[in-house]
Amino acid sequence: MIGNKGRLGGEVVNLLNEKGHSLVYELDIDGENIKDNPQVLIDCSLPSAFNNTLKTAERFTAPLIVATTGLKEEDIAKLKELSNKIPIVQSFNFSVGVQVLLKLTDMANEILKDWDVEITETHHRFKKDKPSGTALMIKEKLGSKPVQVSSLRLGNVAGDHTVTFGGLGETLSITHHAISRRTFAEGILKSAEFLLTKKNGFYSFKEVIFGNS
Amino acid sequence: MIGNKGRLGGEVVNLLNEKGHSLVYELDIDGENIKDNPQVLIDCSLPSAFNNTLKTAERFTAPLIVATTGLKEEDIAKLKELSNKIPIVQSFNFSVGVQVLLKLTDMANEILKDWDVEITETHHRFKKDKPSGTALMIKEKLGSKPVQVSSLRLGNVAGDHTVTFGGLGETLSITHHAISRRTFAEGILKSAEFLLTKKNGFYSFKEVIFGNS
Amino acid sequence: MIGNKGRLGGEVVNLLNEKGHSLVYELDIDGENIKDNPQVLIDCSLPSAFNNTLKTAERFTAPLIVATTGLKEEDIAKLKELSNKIPIVQSFNFSVGVQVLLKLTDMANEILKDWDVEITETHHRFKKDKPSGTALMIKEKLGSKPVQVSSLRLGNVAGDHTVTFGGLGETLSITHHAISRRTFAEGILKSAEFLLTKKNGFYSFKEVIFGNS
Amino acid sequence: MIGNKGRLGGEVVNLLNEKGHSLVYELDIDGENIKDNPQVLIDCSLPSAFNNTLKTAERFTAPLIVATTGLKEEDIAKLKELSNKIPIVQSFNFSVGVQVLLKLTDMANEILKDWDVEITETHHRFKKDKPSGTALMIKEKLGSKPVQVSSLRLGNVAGDHTVTFGGLGETLSITHHAISRRTFAEGILKSAEFLLTKKNGFYSFKEVIFGNS
Repeated sequence: MIGNKGRLGGEVVNLLNEKGHSLVYELDIDGENIKDNPQVLIDCSLPSAFNNTLKTAERFTAPLIVATTGLKEEDIAKLKELSNKIPIVQSFNFSVGVQVLLKLTDMANEILKDWDVEITETHHRFKKDKPSGTALMIKEKLGSKPVQVSSLRLGNVAGDHTVTFGGLGETLSITHHAISRRTFAEGILKSAEFLLTKKNGFYSFKEVIFGNS
Repeated sequence: MIGNKGRLGGEVVNLLNEKGHSLVYELDIDGENIKDNPQVLIDCSLPSAFNNTLKTAERFTAPLIVATTGLKEEDIAKLKELSNKIPIVQSFNFSVGVQVLLKLTDMANEILKDWDVEITETHHRFKKDKPSGTALMIKEKLGSKPVQVSSLRLGNVAGDHTVTFGGLGETLSITHHAISRRTFAEGILKSAEFLLTKKNGFYSFKEVIFGNS
Repeated sequence: MIGNKGRLGGEVVNLLNEKGHSLVYELDIDGENIKDNPQVLIDCSLPSAFNNTLKTAERFTAPLIVATTGLKEEDIAKLKELSNKIPIVQSFNFSVGVQVLLKLTDMANEILKDWDVEITETHHRFKKDKPSGTALMIKEKLGSKPVQVSSLRLGNVAGDHTVTFGGLGETLSITHHAISRRTFAEGILKSAEFLLTKKNGFYSFKEVIFGNS
Repeated sequence: MIGNKGRLGGEVVNLLNEKGHSLVYELDIDGENIKDNPQVLIDCSLPSAFNNTLKTAERFTAPLIVATTGLKEEDIAKLKELSNKIPIVQSFNFSVGVQVLLKLTDMANEILKDWDVEITETHHRFKKDKPSGTALMIKEKLGSKPVQVSSLRLGNVAGDHTVTFGGLGETLSITHHAISRRTFAEGILKSAEFLLTKKNGFYSFKEVIFGNS
């Protein structure tokens, strides 16, 4: 675990314990704690720690899951290069429902070509990046249309995303609502199981859920 | 026009006038008013007038659009029989957005097999049938799952439909919101243009929008 | 009527006709059309025409209703001065529901002092000002709290406003949804009736609805 | 604690531990476990265990908090009688936001007398009572109006309640959304602190939050 003391990291640690997995490696802002070589590395840290993550992954040559949000294009490029040496799953959102949201957005956008589109996302007041990584994934699905993202920060909301298409006379919205961070932790664990069976390469969470098509 | 004095009928009449079409036949609770043989018959009446609609369509052998909601299975069966003699488009909802809602529901349901599902619909307080015909179309897409439909009646809401899938840890909703009855009138006009080019047969509004696939 | 060819102006004209009032004065971008001295002046124009509105009101010394949005503080100051000579109702929103939304926002804000707050508004793609005048009225109710307004522009949505309070563990939202511009036209007509009984002075739509408290 | 192994009971136990309180009495379907006389009794059980709760409270003469939902009028009557001997707080919902929702509903209902009203509530699929106790509290605020409650059961939703008022031309909704059961546990703890300072009597959670007015 890298970033095991953050909100998401803590949730992953809880789930690992619950499922009987052992945490043999910890790296956080306070330093490193090694008990054994990890079978899989899970990164839930911040963009500022990203270069450390890369080094750690190279050192252990263990499969890597990157759940950090706020990464830039050049960070993703470095991950893709590293994926020649180890299998990597990277996603800004590890929930099944968000994968479905992305699929539906894609399909709706294809049919409703000339409708307006707006994205809204709401997260807890402590979230550091804005807009959320998931909102950016949705935006990417909408192609070259000019799309505004409205980011709300409220209390400790786990994470809501809405994409709304507006025509003359009607609107169509798709909304995903995360009830707890547990959802993401389960997606990360599912990705870990997926990676144990995979060759080197760069995988999306979409591939973890829907396969390689 | 059959049922030209209802809410939806009035909207269709307005749109026809605006587009320069002439209304040559009217049939309502107050009786009949014929100026000429109609090119297309549009039915926006109530289930109680349905047998009259069938007779009128047979008499003129004009293409028929049926927008009446609250029809029963045996009514639809009669329409299908009549479609051997004239081309017919029948739908409980003539909006493009609702067609997309149905497609997305289908796709989401296929992936989220073990999630719970709920349908909610809201309409104006004067709506006679409950649940709405559109809610029934959504329910049909969800197959054999037990699905509850909650029907709300509020003020003069034009028509909202939401289908929500609920998993452990997240929910995913698709919502259609009709801004005005004009949307439906435009779908009906589009269907009229479609029918003028078609042979006898029973067509859905989905075929008007997406073609025959 | 000033600005009778805009979206809202047209709706007001329709309602006046329906109720048997006669339109004796029109002023729009194309010029003036006087049949008689107006009993009440209704302004649904744009901020750019505001100085013309003031001159016209002085000329007729008729009670004035100002429904134009996007006015600045100095414009309001001029109106207040003019209200020494004629009775004036000014509001950025003439719906009863919005007045209730403002009242509820006030009360919720008083209790939920340390919760986060966010405002969202959605309007048709043709709306010129951003954020909406109503969103600014809501913001004013929230006092000195830092509050973000997210403005969405979609199809021909008549006007939605949501204010959400977010605490640790829960959120509370109040949403107003305008179904058609008719609602605003009715509020304007109600204000006209109100003004016919009033002395010179500057009145809010809140006073039209709830009286002078 | 009575009912400490249920969903809500477990959350209360966690919070008590976290705050350094000790759990000296447990009563659940598996029997009783006494370490000491409790200072306060907290009941998060089911209606079927209600008579046991009453007996336990009499036995210890400790202040009692009743958070069980699905109680009937006669159960409440028994509680009121018992409150001659011990101080009692009873509520179907221990969140601050819900108390505000109830207040706002009251105020909106007073102004929007002739508008339609609908209540919707969504909870996790395991919730036993339907409609929720909170929905019934909202309904009570709406007086003698005929009000429908739509109950949705989806995944593990913590608890959402919406009351919508619908007029001709607009709607106004108030929505409360519980993010986690923790919110309720905190309200229960707050009630426990409140009770330690109170004489015998029957108190609502509204009194815990807003005082005795």
